[in-house]
Amino acid sequence: MGQATDTLREAVFRANMELAGSGLVMGTFGNVSGVDREADLMMIKPSGVPYDDLTPAHMVPVSLASGEVVDSDLRPSSDTPTHLELYRAFGCGGIVHTHSEHATTLAQAGLPVRCMGTTHADHFRGDVPVTRPLTRAEVEGDYERNTGLVVVETFREAGVSPDEVAAVLVTNHGPFTWGHDAHQAVENARILEYLARMEIRVRLVAPDARCPDVLLVDKHYLRKHGRGAYYGQK
Amino acid sequence: MGQATDTLREAVFRANMELAGSGLVMGTFGNVSGVDREADLMMIKPSGVPYDDLTPAHMVPVSLASGEVVDSDLRPSSDTPTHLELYRAFGCGGIVHTHSEHATTLAQAGLPVRCMGTTHADHFRGDVPVTRPLTRAEVEGDYERNTGLVVVETFREAGVSPDEVAAVLVTNHGPFTWGHDAHQAVENARILEYLARMEIRVRLVAPDARCPDVLLVDKHYLRKHGRGAYYGQK
Amino acid sequence: MGQATDTLREAVFRANMELAGSGLVMGTFGNVSGVDREADLMMIKPSGVPYDDLTPAHMVPVSLASGEVVDSDLRPSSDTPTHLELYRAFGCGGIVHTHSEHATTLAQAGLPVRCMGTTHADHFRGDVPVTRPLTRAEVEGDYERNTGLVVVETFREAGVSPDEVAAVLVTNHGPFTWGHDAHQAVENARILEYLARMEIRVRLVAPDARCPDVLLVDKHYLRKHGRGAYYGQK
Amino acid sequence: MGQATDTLREAVFRANMELAGSGLVMGTFGNVSGVDREADLMMIKPSGVPYDDLTPAHMVPVSLASGEVVDSDLRPSSDTPTHLELYRAFGCGGIVHTHSEHATTLAQAGLPVRCMGTTHADHFRGDVPVTRPLTRAEVEGDYERNTGLVVVETFREAGVSPDEVAAVLVTNHGPFTWGHDAHQAVENARILEYLARMEIRVRLVAPDARCPDVLLVDKHYLRKHGRGAYYGQK
Repeated sequence: MGQATDTLREAVFRANMELAGSGLVMGTFGNVSGVDREADLMMIKPSGVPYDDLTPAHMVPVSLASGEVVDSDLRPSSDTPTHLELYRAFGCGGIVHTHSEHATTLAQAGLPVRCMGTTHADHFRGDVPVTRPLTRAEVEGDYERNTGLVVVETFREAGVSPDEVAAVLVTNHGPFTWGHDAHQAVENARILEYLARMEIRVRLVAPDARCPDVLLVDKHYLRKHGRGAYYGQK
Repeated sequence: MGQATDTLREAVFRANMELAGSGLVMGTFGNVSGVDREADLMMIKPSGVPYDDLTPAHMVPVSLASGEVVDSDLRPSSDTPTHLELYRAFGCGGIVHTHSEHATTLAQAGLPVRCMGTTHADHFRGDVPVTRPLTRAEVEGDYERNTGLVVVETFREAGVSPDEVAAVLVTNHGPFTWGHDAHQAVENARILEYLARMEIRVRLVAPDARCPDVLLVDKHYLRKHGRGAYYGQK
Repeated sequence: MGQATDTLREAVFRANMELAGSGLVMGTFGNVSGVDREADLMMIKPSGVPYDDLTPAHMVPVSLASGEVVDSDLRPSSDTPTHLELYRAFGCGGIVHTHSEHATTLAQAGLPVRCMGTTHADHFRGDVPVTRPLTRAEVEGDYERNTGLVVVETFREAGVSPDEVAAVLVTNHGPFTWGHDAHQAVENARILEYLARMEIRVRLVAPDARCPDVLLVDKHYLRKHGRGAYYGQK
Repeated sequence: MGQATDTLREAVFRANMELAGSGLVMGTFGNVSGVDREADLMMIKPSGVPYDDLTPAHMVPVSLASGEVVDSDLRPSSDTPTHLELYRAFGCGGIVHTHSEHATTLAQAGLPVRCMGTTHADHFRGDVPVTRPLTRAEVEGDYERNTGLVVVETFREAGVSPDEVAAVLVTNHGPFTWGHDAHQAVENARILEYLARMEIRVRLVAPDARCPDVLLVDKHYLRKHGRGAYYGQK
């Protein structure tokens, strides 16, 4: 494999180590992948290897088209088929899965992370949706792949753009986030957890609190994203 | 620019780094400014520059009167017009804006930080108010400036002195705090977050808890502030 | 005592130090034991010795059959009779007792850690049960032994396998966890605390949240445990 | 002053630094004192001096009988009269005052720390009481002294022994703890905060949870305290 693959391997390794240092995962929970669409390769963490032992060489290349492992003796993360379906449906370059405490709490509660303020709107243009539960057939069948398909269905049916809301909660399971690359997907995992912490407390302390006007949400989202953005340096 | 400006630049840089180390901000969230009223200068963090990269030279001088950037190629924080309006209306020397978790939770809930005990009264003489939501016209117009104006309106209409209560929650957004200088404004941001943590829990565990008598609030506030203060060394 | 005993002594010492560094205990709270069934020996932390002072030589060997201390002048943990009853009834190799904050909160509330999602199901096949309170006679009699017997009764009456759910909450007291060895028992104590944190928040934020289908629980548990497991490397 | 005074000065200094490192205080909040009853001396932290600047020489000696500062130009903690009243009424050797987050939350809520389990009973034989609010006359009069008198009244009227329950919550204010010496008083402040964290969560997650039988409380308390104790080494 070539130079581009080595760069991806290194970037995915680094993003996995960022995740390990983020406080969002314990033990071997969690995984990060990145994609090189031209090379038809997804690179992902191996299954069940402690973060302390990981090196770039452990990252497992998988064909985006076929789902087959390419040139590696290691098993990829057991969530690999979920990542593949998200890459196939969404335009992102990196994906993260965690069981981070507060986002997972909301996933277990079957509740979305509502957009209750500008901290949220600075990053995601509206609520972070929660999926429906998988059916028994979906669990008994190709479970990990079906998890990805249910995420895709959730965005399609709600008319939400995965480019503008780069996160989801899978009911009774936990969050997935994505971004332009593996690093940004980890950043979004951090932000999602931060928003989930606030969302849980707002729900408890003010069950009737109202979401801000969509104009405020758009104001903050568009301050940072898109052609009219004026946040940051030129 | 002269000696006084360098001193301000250094102080505002240091206060921004204090904020970065305080646990109150993540990523590039948050900003600190300071003012030199004689020189007509506000000094503020640049927009969207990671804390790790900041140096004193990055601090952006802005004219307090005109709002124009003075001798810098960097964009000031996008919240600059909010800071300017607060300096124009209040007598403070430093201002901090964060999205600190618990203060922001209350801002998203539309709830003030009530003065429920002596920890609060040692620092702020009464409730930390929460603003009304901005109107659609205020969001669509000069949004950041209007944010500052709504804060000023909140204090004026409630008859609260910004010298005695050096903090506010902007609804669906987050807290601003201020002080004699940038450093004290950061200290107040820390204290506000501490008080917000307790306020959320008091509301949950004892929804009917009563505020202490105003005499107790005054006793503690005046132990530490004003001519009769007897806290600390002479 | 022989080589195997030294190995056990060292392993139990290391697991106690892991526990001390885990954030699950404060002061001298908590204890870890391990067992060598062939040698009829349980090795356990001494009572009330600060973690900073512990060495392998402090670990106290106790006969599994008789409960007598073997070749040591130190008193074993006061919870020793509880550990002994669990080893006699369950097939585990290591046991941990903590007063970890969130698991103990649920024990004080008399509530189980329900299996609300895949984080739980990855480790425990169903709810972590809570015991009934001990009777007055059980408290006044052989209290620590009766604590163990009530745990055993809890699993037997609920038809739960201690191999598949390696944790329990003792009402008004705190958690015990176990595993193949002392190290794994500590890992399970960490995971139980993580699950307890989420369980408390789910109960607060969504009192009516529904447990996932048993198929999903089995899917995740069996992905990691037993003959069909496909998580981790071969 | 003699050798015994130097020893007390050093012990009180060290206990103040333990408190600073405990996470229970922020800024200059909190103070620790110790007493030498034979020498009629209480030693206490000076008022408003940052923990980073403290040395043993800063500790302020105060006459237990007269309340006068002895041989020091520094002002003692503003809470000095409260400490004095507690030493006069209780038999303790050290006292700590904090605004630790969860104990203060309960103080603001006007709620005791109920004895809900063995973690509590291992340290305090029953509920940690909360005082009545001070009257307006008590606030306007000798406020800090009256705070101590209200604590003493609380124990006397409830028939609670300050030797067996070495902690109190002052309504709308915060906790005081005590012990055989300044170090043990700090340990009790840590334990109180731990218990307060659990108490708040138990109240939220199980409002109707029942306190354990007094037999269980006594069993655990007496395992560790008094003539029949069998916890720890001989």
